[in-house]
Amino acid sequence: MGKRRERIGIIGAGQLARMLIEAATPLDLDIALLAASPLDSAARIWPDVTVGSPDDVETVAAFARTCDVVTFDHELVPEPVLARLEADGITMAPSANALRVAQNKQRQRELFATQGVPQPNHRVCFNAIDTARAADELGYPVIIKAAYGGYDGRGVWNCTNRAELEAIAAECHERRITMIVEERVALDRELAILVARDKFGNHALYPVVETIQVAGICRQVNLTRAHYRDRSAPAGELAIAVANQIGLVGIMALELFQTGGGLLINEIATRPHNSGHYTIESVATSQFEQHLRAILGWPLGSTKLIAKAASTVNILGGQDGVDPRDRLQTALATTGVAIHLYGKEAQPGRKLGHVTVTGHAVDRCADRAWKAVELLTNERRPEALQ
Amino acid sequence: MGKRRERIGIIGAGQLARMLIEAATPLDLDIALLAASPLDSAARIWPDVTVGSPDDVETVAAFARTCDVVTFDHELVPEPVLARLEADGITMAPSANALRVAQNKQRQRELFATQGVPQPNHRVCFNAIDTARAADELGYPVIIKAAYGGYDGRGVWNCTNRAELEAIAAECHERRITMIVEERVALDRELAILVARDKFGNHALYPVVETIQVAGICRQVNLTRAHYRDRSAPAGELAIAVANQIGLVGIMALELFQTGGGLLINEIATRPHNSGHYTIESVATSQFEQHLRAILGWPLGSTKLIAKAASTVNILGGQDGVDPRDRLQTALATTGVAIHLYGKEAQPGRKLGHVTVTGHAVDRCADRAWKAVELLTNERRPEALQ
Repeated sequence: MGKRRERIGIIGAGQLARMLIEAATPLDLDIALLAASPLDSAARIWPDVTVGSPDDVETVAAFARTCDVVTFDHELVPEPVLARLEADGITMAPSANALRVAQNKQRQRELFATQGVPQPNHRVCFNAIDTARAADELGYPVIIKAAYGGYDGRGVWNCTNRAELEAIAAECHERRITMIVEERVALDRELAILVARDKFGNHALYPVVETIQVAGICRQVNLTRAHYRDRSAPAGELAIAVANQIGLVGIMALELFQTGGGLLINEIATRPHNSGHYTIESVATSQFEQHLRAILGWPLGSTKLIAKAASTVNILGGQDGVDPRDRLQTALATTGVAIHLYGKEAQPGRKLGHVTVTGHAVDRCADRAWKAVELLTNERRPEALQ
Repeated sequence: MGKRRERIGIIGAGQLARMLIEAATPLDLDIALLAASPLDSAARIWPDVTVGSPDDVETVAAFARTCDVVTFDHELVPEPVLARLEADGITMAPSANALRVAQNKQRQRELFATQGVPQPNHRVCFNAIDTARAADELGYPVIIKAAYGGYDGRGVWNCTNRAELEAIAAECHERRITMIVEERVALDRELAILVARDKFGNHALYPVVETIQVAGICRQVNLTRAHYRDRSAPAGELAIAVANQIGLVGIMALELFQTGGGLLINEIATRPHNSGHYTIESVATSQFEQHLRAILGWPLGSTKLIAKAASTVNILGGQDGVDPRDRLQTALATTGVAIHLYGKEAQPGRKLGHVTVTGHAVDRCADRAWKAVELLTNERRPEALQ
């Protein structure tokens, strides 16, 4: 009889959990999944599923007791759940404190300030008067962010004048949401970098990639030598500094602004990240396998590039409700595209999957990836991305 | 609402079914699995499992009725099952007739003879007297093969003299096994090639690889430019000829002998094959995804190489019963190795997984792969493979 394998609990069953499971399977890791519904993205592809709310304290506590380490599909874990897992002595990776930072943009900004990590000018505001004063100080246009609960463009507003600002501030105040008012940075581009860290303090750094957002949602990620050669070193320093500061165990993405004055940190996510899906095909160890290695305390894997260039395009549900699963046969005629569908029902604007193309020239990779996406959802490539 | 997706039934749940599922998951294909046991390799990683014997006619017929197309973990499907699925009008890929050839070395030899495909000299024998006469004609040493039921060195005997031959022939005769007596070919090396074919007659060819057997079991597969550049064209012609002849739908491996006089065909397997596991990391479309595309009638994928060289080493259970799952942490310290464990209980000699390393020089890939295998099972690399 062999030793009992360590049992990894994944709390939440979205596409990140699904791709963690895809990475765990060839290694025959022992995964337990807590899913709100058997129809959740990850629950559709895994036999060992506990159905229950990932936000319910007793449900999560009972699930976690059966695991040696628990990790999370996303960082928006309610405080009562975090507190209970801590009280129960559950091994969490990332830790409750790392999640408390990652899930709250106010705490992120405060941490970066303490550490001297360069970031946009900003003010933390609790009411409409503070907010208006902050915007006046910073100068319009400003970005308002909800401190907690935002993702994929939700909880982020672009304000060009005081009337817009007052409407948003009033709504946030009514919902008791703390606001961050930030200068709108004049940026050359947005970048992202992944770093993994284990409990022994070892790191594995990935190259910098360019991320392109449309309406606050990441649409395209480019891996290109021009960026990773010039920007990986300073971005890597920031990533390691933040990882050490929060005691990261697992993988983390840093979203960065590249400006004339250097790199500024936008925000962090302490989990596999949309900007890192390219790693599945383009790096020796994907972000998902790396996260699993890190949380188990196993040797971190090589982050050597196995492609010179890559482009990942997200597949969003179209307004016409077309299901990309119905168009897969057609899209697979595009040669050399790696299509990932998440098993989610098609809804307008919902992230249903992604396409990655690797090659020598990023523009040609992007052309091919968009061709596949157009075939999958009828979405025309936005002009801004041509 | 989208269209109903085509439902693919996989009959049998070994590691080939498991890796088919691993390839199906990113594409969100609808897979149903028929497994003899919930502990079978593929059943451990998939939620949609029917437990029942893949050799039982009624069980398989009931399962197949729920699917749009069925495929098989291995070709040793009992004739009553094949006949019943045919009678029920089930779409099988490969077809019953293709399986009837693939599962029977006598039928393979007869087909190759009809087509003029070069193969070893051989005789089909039904009793000890025929067998002895055949060996005398061909000259010792000879190879005796059971026409049906062999795999991984089982059902194949190397006979250097008449006494050995008579013992084997007596045993086969008693068990009513038809024998093939073959010349032992003076070969330079063993090669293998994969071809996929769809029902429209489209093909996708993979490069030739070298396979190295020890005691009749494939231990190592080498992808190296020296072989695929020089041998892929003639091997590909053979592969396409055989694929067309049997009306292949799906993927097929040809095992070949490279001799001074050219290529001879050893045998075929109408399924993903151990010699093709390298494709997961080394080719744009793995043999598993390609099989799925082919049986669905979807566009075949690119077989472009994404590595210059690769080596795959099989992980066999050691005599000391060590479970490679217990050694994974240690083995993962070897950088750049892709470890695949099949979720099977460790038994001496049992195939428990494989390791693939890609790179520029095949020897260095093999060194690294063997290092990981040694760490996983304590097996020392055989001297013959150093």
